[in-house]
Amino acid sequence: MTTFVSEAESAALVDDELALAAAREAFLATGTGQTFPVVIGNSSLPHNRFTLKSGSAGDLVGVKIGSFWPDNTELPRHSSTIVLLDPATGRLRAVVEAAAANAYRTAAADALAVDALARKDSRTLTIIGTGHQALHEVRAVSRVRPIERVFVVGRRPDAAKTFAAQVTAVTGMTAEPTDARTGVAEADVLVTATTSREPLFDASWVAPGTHISAMGADGPGKQELPVAIYDRARLFCDLPEQSTTIGEFQHAQAAVPVALGSVLAGDADGRTSPEDVTVFDSSGFALQDLTLAAALLHRRFGEHE
Amino acid sequence: MTTFVSEAESAALVDDELALAAAREAFLATGTGQTFPVVIGNSSLPHNRFTLKSGSAGDLVGVKIGSFWPDNTELPRHSSTIVLLDPATGRLRAVVEAAAANAYRTAAADALAVDALARKDSRTLTIIGTGHQALHEVRAVSRVRPIERVFVVGRRPDAAKTFAAQVTAVTGMTAEPTDARTGVAEADVLVTATTSREPLFDASWVAPGTHISAMGADGPGKQELPVAIYDRARLFCDLPEQSTTIGEFQHAQAAVPVALGSVLAGDADGRTSPEDVTVFDSSGFALQDLTLAAALLHRRFGEHE
Repeated sequence: MTTFVSEAESAALVDDELALAAAREAFLATGTGQTFPVVIGNSSLPHNRFTLKSGSAGDLVGVKIGSFWPDNTELPRHSSTIVLLDPATGRLRAVVEAAAANAYRTAAADALAVDALARKDSRTLTIIGTGHQALHEVRAVSRVRPIERVFVVGRRPDAAKTFAAQVTAVTGMTAEPTDARTGVAEADVLVTATTSREPLFDASWVAPGTHISAMGADGPGKQELPVAIYDRARLFCDLPEQSTTIGEFQHAQAAVPVALGSVLAGDADGRTSPEDVTVFDSSGFALQDLTLAAALLHRRFGEHE
Repeated sequence: MTTFVSEAESAALVDDELALAAAREAFLATGTGQTFPVVIGNSSLPHNRFTLKSGSAGDLVGVKIGSFWPDNTELPRHSSTIVLLDPATGRLRAVVEAAAANAYRTAAADALAVDALARKDSRTLTIIGTGHQALHEVRAVSRVRPIERVFVVGRRPDAAKTFAAQVTAVTGMTAEPTDARTGVAEADVLVTATTSREPLFDASWVAPGTHISAMGADGPGKQELPVAIYDRARLFCDLPEQSTTIGEFQHAQAAVPVALGSVLAGDADGRTSPEDVTVFDSSGFALQDLTLAAALLHRRFGEHE
């Protein structure tokens, strides 16, 4: 029998804890699981795009269909549908709509990276980007580090001001809009969550000891970080082969990023000193979606889903 | 609201007429629609494979997840799930399980090709292959040509004999097992429906005027036809870029097959004389799946699905 979890159900089921556990499981599986080439397609209108990310690990096998319809006004522009196949028969096992849950999933990857790589005493978080994903990132990071102060950097001053007020209202933390240079220089943890196609700041503004999570780049041409940062940073990512083709590291000629999963498994070093600049690039991989769907199904239906 | 059509429902809804109309719509759309790179993946057990075929045309956009679990005994080894997105919003529109319907879809492509390319007086059909797909091919071809006699060629004589008896029982036509050389030489229409990875016959056995539909090759290394046939045949396929990479024409170095859709639209010549040998290669493309799903939804829910 096929199981279906609607958008309304998954949005009600998901929380930070579920997403973080699912993300940890996915990152730990990157060594043994498989991911297959990402497809980027579109509807008859070329600006309406979808991506197919598929993979398998353990008893999970399936695909996430992500869509980005920029003209949506009533509905969110991003949607997400995760399809799981039955590992025993190859037949359809479950369909999970996960547009809201997808934002938790992405932020959970950031939280895992910050927890593994940022200084334990990180108290200042700067977020570049004021879109839907940004608040999820602030919440997820502040769960794993004693963040006291949030700087918000946005292209539009009014959006940055509004978003800072929202951060304070939701989290109770002090949050204020600022310029990119100040925000970058003050950050213990710097998160970029934009759709940018060019560097958002100058590498020279980054202080020693900073951790940077680049969450936005997930396609050809997208870029958030200055390439000059790569010479003085330790580089990490979710999937090296994907990060260097469609992620941030597509712009770093000789970059050999380390899989975060290897750090989490204790097979690779993370931060080695308080002075290290660490960079994590998230391009998003199928195993995150498969473990998220399994976690939602488990929460909805219990052990015997 | 998301619509779901189960395997049992689609199996009860599908018939040759629905599949043929959907196939015609798909082939006519090859000129304007889009298909995206095919993904071939697997579960944690490498022999359990799935394919993702995605595309868009008109108001259709989505993906077919085809699976092949060779160890299945109770259930068919092939499964198929078609996911349609809402062209207006990018959200999930419908999920259609279509394992049984998929066999009709594939055979309908063959029927379209035979109707467009085979001699009108084709009376002898030879089928190489005795698997699940073979009976669908025989039925579909006999709907578009006055087939009177069927030859069956199989690796195992007992399987060929059993299948020939099944053809007679189901269609009423005379059917008999024979060797490959006789079957190929006698055929007006020759259909190959196997999982072969090497040529099934010698090109010299093919008589002038024969039409050949190669239905089996849909992945790297698969092959049913001898390359020597290409020098003396007119070549057609579903999608040229796919046919020359994962279809039969991956083995034909300089082949430039013509899209069947162009012939159906009147934009390219099909058969030009009773002596022509015509070859059609079907590797299967996403638009066939999208139009099939739409036709099933229409039959199930009417105009306002």
